[in-house]
Amino acid sequence: MYSFKNDYSETAHPRILQAIADTNLEQDEGYGLDRHSENARGHIARRLGKFADKADIHFLCGGTQANLTAISAFLRPHEAVVATEASHIAVHETGAIEATGHKILTVPTRDGKLLPEQVEEVLALHPDEHMVKPRLVKISQTTEIGAVYKAAELEKLSDLCRRKGLLLYVDGARMGSALTSEGSDATLEDLCRLADAFYIGGTKNGAMIGEAMVLCSDALKPDFRYHIKQKGGLLAKGRILGVQFEELFRDDLYFDLARRANGAAQAIAAGLKKAGFEFLTDSPSNQIFPILPDSLIEKLQKDWSFYVWKKVTATRSAVRLVTSWATTEEAVEKFVSALRGDA
Amino acid sequence: MYSFKNDYSETAHPRILQAIADTNLEQDEGYGLDRHSENARGHIARRLGKFADKADIHFLCGGTQANLTAISAFLRPHEAVVATEASHIAVHETGAIEATGHKILTVPTRDGKLLPEQVEEVLALHPDEHMVKPRLVKISQTTEIGAVYKAAELEKLSDLCRRKGLLLYVDGARMGSALTSEGSDATLEDLCRLADAFYIGGTKNGAMIGEAMVLCSDALKPDFRYHIKQKGGLLAKGRILGVQFEELFRDDLYFDLARRANGAAQAIAAGLKKAGFEFLTDSPSNQIFPILPDSLIEKLQKDWSFYVWKKVTATRSAVRLVTSWATTEEAVEKFVSALRGDA
Amino acid sequence: MYSFKNDYSETAHPRILQAIADTNLEQDEGYGLDRHSENARGHIARRLGKFADKADIHFLCGGTQANLTAISAFLRPHEAVVATEASHIAVHETGAIEATGHKILTVPTRDGKLLPEQVEEVLALHPDEHMVKPRLVKISQTTEIGAVYKAAELEKLSDLCRRKGLLLYVDGARMGSALTSEGSDATLEDLCRLADAFYIGGTKNGAMIGEAMVLCSDALKPDFRYHIKQKGGLLAKGRILGVQFEELFRDDLYFDLARRANGAAQAIAAGLKKAGFEFLTDSPSNQIFPILPDSLIEKLQKDWSFYVWKKVTATRSAVRLVTSWATTEEAVEKFVSALRGDA
Amino acid sequence: MYSFKNDYSETAHPRILQAIADTNLEQDEGYGLDRHSENARGHIARRLGKFADKADIHFLCGGTQANLTAISAFLRPHEAVVATEASHIAVHETGAIEATGHKILTVPTRDGKLLPEQVEEVLALHPDEHMVKPRLVKISQTTEIGAVYKAAELEKLSDLCRRKGLLLYVDGARMGSALTSEGSDATLEDLCRLADAFYIGGTKNGAMIGEAMVLCSDALKPDFRYHIKQKGGLLAKGRILGVQFEELFRDDLYFDLARRANGAAQAIAAGLKKAGFEFLTDSPSNQIFPILPDSLIEKLQKDWSFYVWKKVTATRSAVRLVTSWATTEEAVEKFVSALRGDA
Repeated sequence: MYSFKNDYSETAHPRILQAIADTNLEQDEGYGLDRHSENARGHIARRLGKFADKADIHFLCGGTQANLTAISAFLRPHEAVVATEASHIAVHETGAIEATGHKILTVPTRDGKLLPEQVEEVLALHPDEHMVKPRLVKISQTTEIGAVYKAAELEKLSDLCRRKGLLLYVDGARMGSALTSEGSDATLEDLCRLADAFYIGGTKNGAMIGEAMVLCSDALKPDFRYHIKQKGGLLAKGRILGVQFEELFRDDLYFDLARRANGAAQAIAAGLKKAGFEFLTDSPSNQIFPILPDSLIEKLQKDWSFYVWKKVTATRSAVRLVTSWATTEEAVEKFVSALRGDA
Repeated sequence: MYSFKNDYSETAHPRILQAIADTNLEQDEGYGLDRHSENARGHIARRLGKFADKADIHFLCGGTQANLTAISAFLRPHEAVVATEASHIAVHETGAIEATGHKILTVPTRDGKLLPEQVEEVLALHPDEHMVKPRLVKISQTTEIGAVYKAAELEKLSDLCRRKGLLLYVDGARMGSALTSEGSDATLEDLCRLADAFYIGGTKNGAMIGEAMVLCSDALKPDFRYHIKQKGGLLAKGRILGVQFEELFRDDLYFDLARRANGAAQAIAAGLKKAGFEFLTDSPSNQIFPILPDSLIEKLQKDWSFYVWKKVTATRSAVRLVTSWATTEEAVEKFVSALRGDA
Repeated sequence: MYSFKNDYSETAHPRILQAIADTNLEQDEGYGLDRHSENARGHIARRLGKFADKADIHFLCGGTQANLTAISAFLRPHEAVVATEASHIAVHETGAIEATGHKILTVPTRDGKLLPEQVEEVLALHPDEHMVKPRLVKISQTTEIGAVYKAAELEKLSDLCRRKGLLLYVDGARMGSALTSEGSDATLEDLCRLADAFYIGGTKNGAMIGEAMVLCSDALKPDFRYHIKQKGGLLAKGRILGVQFEELFRDDLYFDLARRANGAAQAIAAGLKKAGFEFLTDSPSNQIFPILPDSLIEKLQKDWSFYVWKKVTATRSAVRLVTSWATTEEAVEKFVSALRGDA
Repeated sequence: MYSFKNDYSETAHPRILQAIADTNLEQDEGYGLDRHSENARGHIARRLGKFADKADIHFLCGGTQANLTAISAFLRPHEAVVATEASHIAVHETGAIEATGHKILTVPTRDGKLLPEQVEEVLALHPDEHMVKPRLVKISQTTEIGAVYKAAELEKLSDLCRRKGLLLYVDGARMGSALTSEGSDATLEDLCRLADAFYIGGTKNGAMIGEAMVLCSDALKPDFRYHIKQKGGLLAKGRILGVQFEELFRDDLYFDLARRANGAAQAIAAGLKKAGFEFLTDSPSNQIFPILPDSLIEKLQKDWSFYVWKKVTATRSAVRLVTSWATTEEAVEKFVSALRGDA
């Protein structure tokens, strides 16, 4: 049984483990004040172009923790989040945002992208103090359905947010996949320029655990460490986050691993297209959503594990296939063969 | 510069890293449902004596996260925590418990222990709905000042709690040190019998990160995973917590490491006593609080790093010295020499 | 300018003011422990049939306060509310429920009613700990669109809730209007039997301020006064709530006032139907939603104030007309004349 | 049985009830946007001297609601309140502030006053992100023990707050008593100048219910109505708060009533002093705390109701006597006689 269920089925890229082992017995400061976290912040900062000296960078353990810490730090009690109905924070974080007191206002989506006109509609519906005040627009790059925002799309959202006094926050659990996907043109520097904060996901791209939060807007920077601590995310051994991001960003490892994940998914997608299958959405990233006959799905499930995403017709369903840096070429080839009925 | 500042200055015991490396490329389920977490739960359960089949065990990333997740899961909105004024949750968790909506009622302490009569006083002061309702008694084993509750002390607290309808929760960030300290007689089985929930700290005893929450009372078990997820503690790669606790508890590694940490602290303590120094409190664990002349402290700080805990007289202060599994015999010897002025 | 904007444009029925004046200088206990609150609880209890001795009754100041106090008292942190997308708590309470930590899961509606099959769909979509746990079904009687649940509809919802372990909570801001509307067959005794808690609205039916919360299920009763106090609803002069409900329920005043409000609305509705106008929904209660030509709306707005509810076609909109115990016959007649263009 | 238990044993001053009756059937806007609330804001503003045009004024139902709404609106999640251990928010509001997520840091007190040096000590103990960040200093005028801050004391606290970036918030549940007490020199204009926000209590000084929140600092003004609504304090019939404060402040009624309450308490105090009794603290306001023999207390309790505050010696206790605008001269005289054993 081989798994395409997600991009966190294995632990970490071997270079990550090696870096942890190499620094294991060094004595260092706790709580992210160690030299490796410092180095990691420097390495990431250098990728932010002209924002290198301005952004504040913090490390957290996971995506839900990153989202709830950031959003609760950024908002006043009456302020709400705007996101798509497929948004991870809206569906798959067990009400983590609401547990910090904030409503999430959702809009429909097909590919997971939030459109500026949808944000404007939400604003129009929330004119006064009898309703929450929309204040933060949350998008995911890649989206939960594998799509990637183009720079121009981000520009438009950012533009609207600035005109309307809204914050733009980007959940980058799969930021690596987005940055390296075919046709993608939005860089980390663009994100710094257009968003108020975003995070660069490590867990789903080679790290053992860890996400790097980048605070771009000055207003969001003060006291952020208090919030990490209060929400349970300030690790005594913060160094293990630092060591990992140091290794991922001291050269291009982070990008290489993401490219490898995308490559595996796109190789499967190519095989699927060749075999005549259609897709729920067009995804250039490491998550693809082919539509397969239910009989084929059943057959595949004997040797492969993956999520059945949703019923599309009476006899066909979309499935979700996810690849990672650890996906083997052999697995890709075998799976494509199995799809074609060769195996 | 050698550090006695804390027990998390190094990353992890080499066996832990090896176990992570050995299982690195196995594909496994996410969110703590992997086989290693399952094994680890079994290994810990077997240490709980007749409670082996009853306790629910969950893994979390750190102490603050463990405390806030448990306490917010256990209490209704109007219920409060009783703890000492030195309690970690009261002072050093940035209001994490209050951020989930609950007041902490504190009582004075010298060695960090909470006494049954103090709990009764708090109850007497909170008779009606104009005040919060004391509902959960939180203690730390070892205490924040290095003391260790005896079994008989735990019995008395537990007894009171059951008579008064209170929950007893034990923060075991340094549970290993407590269990293996000289004269300690409270076992994990005792904790299961006497407390409603407790956690076994990994971070400060050889693990890279991780704490094992043990839910003893049936009433606290339902839906606990929802709370972990909501509070940002359910790691996609939960396996890394499982692998670590599997290694710590498949034999006696967890206890051996704690014993080693206690041994180092007590060796320093012996040297200090021999040299005529007094202590703020009597601690059998891996944290000791000798009272030293300020001039000596200043001299020691050139080569050693540690916290100055508090002023005791005009010319003398208590310092906190913390050891761990990683503390070297050489460091202990050199420090004792330095204390005596040999070096 | 006469207002049909809402049912709280005037202060209170004269008998209410008289009762307050009559008891003004009596010295009495604070916080709802006075003799008038006690009497009022007795008067209401006697309306609950065989549940008279079982229900717990508490007085609160307003609807948002009643809802947030009850829901936060009833739910654990990971539990969520199911309601319609038109629900007052979902739209018009500024995120009050989320501010206490709970997500509201909404479903579409036309007339404001929540259907059992919609609740089942929500349950099916929330199977595990990555999502909130639906736990409380919240309906409004009358709905926000003026509809009234029949006893059989409440039976079905209640049945489902009990089979699925859900709580049923009824927002009765306009309970009086519901109970006395034409064709209505659900009594207060039915509500006690079918719901776990509900409130009887005073503010919108003759009281100056005040809502009476009725806790039907034993599990919800303990410590409710703590929650009222914590959320700011336990008035020092709780007697003023008691005096009002004592007056409303010592005879049939509460029901008479509601009947009068319904009568006024239905008289307008009859006039509208006669004049050939259609309605957004069929409402037997004190809120009606006729669809009028925009030109007529503009004309009416010179002398009458009311909400334009929503655009229905390019040239027609639905408006909301609300009546109360204070609506005069003269106003009803004049408005109907104005509609017909007589005026 | 006559009650000196509190200053809310009766409903309202007759002029208040008359004002409500006089405006009863006027149709007006909801939610505090009515003409009477507008007038009331104007009347209060004119008492603020040069701050008349700057302060924002809002009406709320009660003290706990005022405190929790203000504090949760003013603070970010990691920020904490500094108050005395006798503070109403710390003891008698059922954890209302913690329920909105904020810790209250308390300091000891004898007469309920908070001293600048105590605030500085709290600041010194909270230097970094492992602890909450003290951000708001909360005092009560009068204090919970009947004392009144002098203008010079407020100046010093305000001064410290501004130097340290802290907010100063004044709970004025008994502001009337403070402003009119013998020797008091701090005016409403002073409060505007020195505090960032305060409220003027109506419930305990002649109103039926209601407190007037005055926001002095511009930074605290935006969106305050959202917070009132979210916390359940925005009454549909907000007019009833407006009508009351309109009546209290259109002439000197508010001050006259407070003066009368103070007069009654001081008459009793004079009687007590004459009879040789001592006091727990020196109070010029409407709450006094004489120390009486337990045998006398027992005798008095047959005809009078009041709180026994605390044991002072084996045979003597302090009691709390509270007077109000409604306290009769006859009651005062009789009580003083009873004290002297005349009766």
